[in-house]
Amino acid sequence: MELNNEKIILGIDPGTSIMGFGIISIIKNKMQMVSIHELILNKYPNHETKLKYIFERTLALIDEFHPDEVALEAPFFGKNVQSMLKLGRAQGVAMAASLHRDVPITEYSPKKVKMAITGNGNASKEQVAGMLQHLLQLEEFPTKYLDASDGLAVAVCHHFNSGTVASDKKYTGWDSFVKNNPNRLK
Amino acid sequence: MELNNEKIILGIDPGTSIMGFGIISIIKNKMQMVSIHELILNKYPNHETKLKYIFERTLALIDEFHPDEVALEAPFFGKNVQSMLKLGRAQGVAMAASLHRDVPITEYSPKKVKMAITGNGNASKEQVAGMLQHLLQLEEFPTKYLDASDGLAVAVCHHFNSGTVASDKKYTGWDSFVKNNPNRLK
Repeated sequence: MELNNEKIILGIDPGTSIMGFGIISIIKNKMQMVSIHELILNKYPNHETKLKYIFERTLALIDEFHPDEVALEAPFFGKNVQSMLKLGRAQGVAMAASLHRDVPITEYSPKKVKMAITGNGNASKEQVAGMLQHLLQLEEFPTKYLDASDGLAVAVCHHFNSGTVASDKKYTGWDSFVKNNPNRLK
Repeated sequence: MELNNEKIILGIDPGTSIMGFGIISIIKNKMQMVSIHELILNKYPNHETKLKYIFERTLALIDEFHPDEVALEAPFFGKNVQSMLKLGRAQGVAMAASLHRDVPITEYSPKKVKMAITGNGNASKEQVAGMLQHLLQLEEFPTKYLDASDGLAVAVCHHFNSGTVASDKKYTGWDSFVKNNPNRLK
């Protein structure tokens, strides 16, 4: 929804135990926090139920807040192939929900997110939350959502990187792919 | 669709370059091939476009053939974390489409699929295709779909394992999870 120059960004930190979502609005370059959500996935007994829950929730947030863009925190490397397979599934599901609604996705590495917010790629979660509180002019950071702050952080990171080529990977929706690649489809 | 004791199984072999789909029907324990499809994903320029295509196509096949069950060939280990992340994304998207329609998923390792079809966990693609031709009483195997045969193979493997506990992982849809775990949701 781009209304009165307003832009809505949904930031997602996909994980297999906790998933963080942060929604910000930007009006005339001024950021505001709209909403923050976390999904506790530990309570679900199997990975497929988690994936279904991630998909439905991501779709529900898109349908509620109508983001113009989705920013995703996406680690590209991990400890072992098993955990990367599970993480890949969680990422894929969140991406599917976004692309299903034709919302463009941009991916950022965790290091890039921390760097964009604090100037330090190795900042702690608390340092990131502190800067987010300052940047978004929050009375106090909703600490019960500390684990969800990465979703908010990647949304803010995306705003800082908008219009630049500084993002790790930038993709647009199907429509623009078709438009830009008329001969790639048969 | 369970009509006149008919059961439809959609088998999926998710990959990042080619994705295979096989649909079989079982009437009074007699298998028949209904349809076979392959998605060539190489032609798409980025991973997100592939994922969107996988999602839309899986959903379209489910909506066209109304499978009672989905069987997925899912390697659990791979060469490196990067390829497993990409493969995990492709799997996650196919799973999301199935679970979004409340179709239960069962996963099988590639070895288990080959074992179920040929009796040999290390059988070649050609050997699997040959046995599928015999089992499904096909005049000739549609060789142009050789790369898609793994989708058909996992569907047949699922039929052979139905009603047993022999599958690697068995999950049911959201509805049955809620029914079986009334206290796990809040």
